[in-house]
Amino acid sequence: MNLYLEKASALAPELIRTTVMPFEKEENRRSLKKGDKVVFDFGDHQVGYVTLKMKSVGSPQDAPAFIRLKFAEIEKELHENADDYDGWISRGWIQEECIHIDVLPAVLELQRRYAFRYLEVSVIDTSQKFQLVIEDVSLSAVSSADQASVDPLGLQDEKLKKLDKVSIRTLQNCMQDVFEDGPKRDRRLWIGDLRLQAKVNYVLFRNYDLVKRCLYLFAGLTREDGKVSACLFTEPEYIGDDTYIFDYSLFFIDILKDYYQETNDIAFVEELWDCAYRQIELSRLEFDDTNLYANEETMSCFVDWKEGLDRQASAQAIYIQCLKNAVGLADVLGKTTIAQELQDEIQNKTEAALRYLWDDRQKFFVSGKDRQVSYASQVWMVLAGVVNKEEGALLLHRIAELNPEMGMVTPYANSHYVEALLMCGEKQQALDYLNYYWGGMLVQGADTFWEMYNPENPDESPYGSSIVNSYCHAWSCMPSFFIRKYFL
Amino acid sequence: MNLYLEKASALAPELIRTTVMPFEKEENRRSLKKGDKVVFDFGDHQVGYVTLKMKSVGSPQDAPAFIRLKFAEIEKELHENADDYDGWISRGWIQEECIHIDVLPAVLELQRRYAFRYLEVSVIDTSQKFQLVIEDVSLSAVSSADQASVDPLGLQDEKLKKLDKVSIRTLQNCMQDVFEDGPKRDRRLWIGDLRLQAKVNYVLFRNYDLVKRCLYLFAGLTREDGKVSACLFTEPEYIGDDTYIFDYSLFFIDILKDYYQETNDIAFVEELWDCAYRQIELSRLEFDDTNLYANEETMSCFVDWKEGLDRQASAQAIYIQCLKNAVGLADVLGKTTIAQELQDEIQNKTEAALRYLWDDRQKFFVSGKDRQVSYASQVWMVLAGVVNKEEGALLLHRIAELNPEMGMVTPYANSHYVEALLMCGEKQQALDYLNYYWGGMLVQGADTFWEMYNPENPDESPYGSSIVNSYCHAWSCMPSFFIRKYFL
Repeated sequence: MNLYLEKASALAPELIRTTVMPFEKEENRRSLKKGDKVVFDFGDHQVGYVTLKMKSVGSPQDAPAFIRLKFAEIEKELHENADDYDGWISRGWIQEECIHIDVLPAVLELQRRYAFRYLEVSVIDTSQKFQLVIEDVSLSAVSSADQASVDPLGLQDEKLKKLDKVSIRTLQNCMQDVFEDGPKRDRRLWIGDLRLQAKVNYVLFRNYDLVKRCLYLFAGLTREDGKVSACLFTEPEYIGDDTYIFDYSLFFIDILKDYYQETNDIAFVEELWDCAYRQIELSRLEFDDTNLYANEETMSCFVDWKEGLDRQASAQAIYIQCLKNAVGLADVLGKTTIAQELQDEIQNKTEAALRYLWDDRQKFFVSGKDRQVSYASQVWMVLAGVVNKEEGALLLHRIAELNPEMGMVTPYANSHYVEALLMCGEKQQALDYLNYYWGGMLVQGADTFWEMYNPENPDESPYGSSIVNSYCHAWSCMPSFFIRKYFL
Repeated sequence: MNLYLEKASALAPELIRTTVMPFEKEENRRSLKKGDKVVFDFGDHQVGYVTLKMKSVGSPQDAPAFIRLKFAEIEKELHENADDYDGWISRGWIQEECIHIDVLPAVLELQRRYAFRYLEVSVIDTSQKFQLVIEDVSLSAVSSADQASVDPLGLQDEKLKKLDKVSIRTLQNCMQDVFEDGPKRDRRLWIGDLRLQAKVNYVLFRNYDLVKRCLYLFAGLTREDGKVSACLFTEPEYIGDDTYIFDYSLFFIDILKDYYQETNDIAFVEELWDCAYRQIELSRLEFDDTNLYANEETMSCFVDWKEGLDRQASAQAIYIQCLKNAVGLADVLGKTTIAQELQDEIQNKTEAALRYLWDDRQKFFVSGKDRQVSYASQVWMVLAGVVNKEEGALLLHRIAELNPEMGMVTPYANSHYVEALLMCGEKQQALDYLNYYWGGMLVQGADTFWEMYNPENPDESPYGSSIVNSYCHAWSCMPSFFIRKYFL
């Protein structure tokens, strides 16, 4: 294990455990025969370990009891049939178990961790001679986030209070041994999610060590050439994934810069500078002679799950933004030569963006050979400061008016849109959008914010079926950041 | 806990554990993706606890591996689909598990006990990025029977040697904490099965304590009026089932008599006499003024699973046989008055059998209002000594010649037929029948003898589907008894 990983290990959090019981419901204590089911409602989104206490009634138990457990983050999942799933990611993510209980009474301590609000217990079979009674269900909920450390929100606006509350719960339930992207799925540390989680964490739980741990992990698990993985695994041991994405590797720099701004921890920046700078060196190879991002593979850069989205302009902008953040870090470390080189590159890349990707007739940034107009391209050019605040505000107004087919489908992409609005001083529009988009999930009954939400198609999934969607997903927890940074 | 149960507890056996590995098969070590499966063949019928060692290959494991385990006593079970099962006993008996493995490599120690020769592992899903490899499978086989205590069979006849070997395995795998009827199903102590198991145990393992333990359990778990249960449970505590069957309760006497003949343990007979005698007192209530068995409920007396079988004549005969065994025990204990009373009753019940149940025109015993002619009625009248050896031999010849529709479907009933033949000195016919009936299971590939076998319909099941049939069932292990008692 290298030094980074050793330091990451030393920062492993102790999980906070809380016992949670479902709502009392007399009818859940009745005798259950073949085909019967009961649903336990834990009142809010939960992550943890479930224990069921069961007994038999009737004649002596003359066969194994056979039950199905279905864990659902939202109520709709209870009505979806796992057998119908035919998507492209593993059906192993569907939170269902079929379990035989040979001897009743029994205390069944489930060994797997689940993310859910509702637990449905169906009796597949008992026998003609006995029935099953669920005497008790309890949950040991886990998180490394301490809710007690969150400042009360000094606002009267009920809508904002609710957005904040649900964001807090979302981040809390994703904060485990690392910042997970989602406690149902994929249950691991993705750097794109981490960037947003860390920002929200700074205004809520202020768990700096967990961010530090995650950066050490990424730095300790780079590819041979120093490239930072898009995500990593902590079990059975620390493993960097073999997925590498342009924007995700670059975000290492952003996260480090944000961390420094929060903590002034120069020593840590010094330790990780080489890794951060290496991301620029490697990303630079993706540009052509005209200083344009030239990797045409669709998923070379993530940006959003929006199908058909061309990523060129977004990638160009993200690179510029990360160069700017790298300059900030180089300044801190007194690396003036490098800072100057990066400044020169910022200028070259910005000029290329304006020369080749700005369509002066349409007044939009365009992306790719087909000169696609999308929300994402405008948003990232604004965030990267390729246009100034005033131009940015106008650009964002124009794109909203056009409302191009190339919209945004993830809360991740929508967060960048809101961030861009706030950067341009468009507070009211940002607020309206928060209420429209995240508020839309609240109307749908969200206890935590979702991985995917398309207000025009709430069933949308990038995976072929919403049954594997994650309904508590870290990249959607930004409302708390916006509210606490801009609206207090 | 009463004194009987305390004594039963003290006699609880220590299980003998043996590690068993499946046949080496290179292709079982290959990488498995969604939809792939492998079958491990453990070479013989096994009962025990399985451990699987697994790892992932390919990219890091980015989703839970989701596998299905299917345990099959015979090869045919591998091709049956549990989803199609619609029988009347619990589908909980089907030995299948679906298991998520969150982190690979993993050592999966299954907590349930299985009865099987074949273990099929199917991959329901991994992900597009990794595959599963089963590195190792092993079994900790359990039994309270010590194979080392079995005398080698001094015979050259290969067929008899095979019948004996498979009988030994059948009994061995049913001998656990008690004599189980079948290690797949029902996994508990039934007194009808115990009667035959004890007989075979005396010629093989000679584990007298296990028989003693089982009799104590039945004596300690009677109904309030003293009636012995048809079966009992040992977990979560000792519980007598609320099923009471005429012949099964009476067999308590038979088992006690056989035990005494083997051990000369008068003290034990003395202890259990009251319980044994009480079965006669209670069974007597089932007779009418003409001394005929008068309970017309089909399953008041078991005899066989044969559908439509009328049990009256069999019940009459079984009662007479148990009276005779009770007389034997009364004599041992010097209870002369009771012995004389029982002798009188034997005479009354036998006269009634001959007067009302013997059809002199057909030359068969008949049963019930419809005067049904069946194998079972003749067999039990012979076993009860209602006819003498010579008459019995003729009767058994006649019934075989008639071959009535009311035949025998279980090895249990067929064992009584062979026993009757041997009682009448028909050794060759008995031998031929052993080869025809149990030999027929060997032809079908049996490693242990089955709960059900109808040579004319090998798929027959009393439960609506053979998928819940038990293929290692104690009541079918009698060949070793016959061979070792009559053919050495």
